[in-house]
Amino acid sequence: MTRTLIPRPLTAEAFAPYGEVIEAAAAARQAIPINYGATMRFHDLARIDVAEGGGEPCVSIFRSQPLPQPIEIKLMERHPLGSQAFIPFGGRPYLVVVAPPGELDPDRIEAFLAQPHQGVNYAKGTWHHYSLALEGESDFLVIDRQGPGDNLDEVELAPEQRWTIAL
Amino acid sequence: MTRTLIPRPLTAEAFAPYGEVIEAAAAARQAIPINYGATMRFHDLARIDVAEGGGEPCVSIFRSQPLPQPIEIKLMERHPLGSQAFIPFGGRPYLVVVAPPGELDPDRIEAFLAQPHQGVNYAKGTWHHYSLALEGESDFLVIDRQGPGDNLDEVELAPEQRWTIAL
Repeated sequence: MTRTLIPRPLTAEAFAPYGEVIEAAAAARQAIPINYGATMRFHDLARIDVAEGGGEPCVSIFRSQPLPQPIEIKLMERHPLGSQAFIPFGGRPYLVVVAPPGELDPDRIEAFLAQPHQGVNYAKGTWHHYSLALEGESDFLVIDRQGPGDNLDEVELAPEQRWTIAL
Repeated sequence: MTRTLIPRPLTAEAFAPYGEVIEAAAAARQAIPINYGATMRFHDLARIDVAEGGGEPCVSIFRSQPLPQPIEIKLMERHPLGSQAFIPFGGRPYLVVVAPPGELDPDRIEAFLAQPHQGVNYAKGTWHHYSLALEGESDFLVIDRQGPGDNLDEVELAPEQRWTIAL
């Protein structure tokens, strides 16, 4: 018996407590024409915050399989030492499930439906579910932290704290 | 009157003098199953080298228009203070035009045809042409450096030093 979580559309404003949405539909102040007019640069869209404790940026590809539906949220994780950005490049939507930093409050978990052109950057310490691909195998470019220290906290939810995603 | 440059297929081996190819078809040592088996992590695919002179990583989106064909290589640029990574996420191929670090040698310019699932990371100081989209408007996730200092050198080629790309 779980509770139902209805994903909201992913917008920069709604996601602001958790980090940044990485998308070209950014504020005009961030759009700079370069390359003699051939390219528009949407500049500095995510705070890559990985230097704590001697950390460095790490670029990886995550190839994720969709979980069986209905998707149940049974655990959450956070990276106390660094931010983590996901940018999809397979053309598929995906789910973003987050909760505010601090001690995990399962009642404050919320879900967003991200479109194929939208990436997200989880701020350091933001609770999130691991990669939730939809529709099929999905590749994400990931920018996170490598370096010394334990950069993963994981919490398993008790049965009454769990959520089922309504899709 | 220009010379003709024939693009080679982009492979990690051929591109090694210039940086890394960012793609999931990486060496098996870099593939790590995570997320209880739902995700394969192709780990640490690019050397993000942006700390010199107080630099920090910067994540942007470049939205590039194809140049008119035939594409002529008239100028090259480099970033002396940091690496620059391009990961396409529009599903289109693109061109990568590079030359070895040091003083630019126009005779050593070479071209690669990158497939939609391949990104590239130009090592610090590597000569390259700016973003060369093919087939239509193309978005790239870019990871480069922001911070103090002049991080752009640009060289215009004399007419006899120029190349035309054969496509």
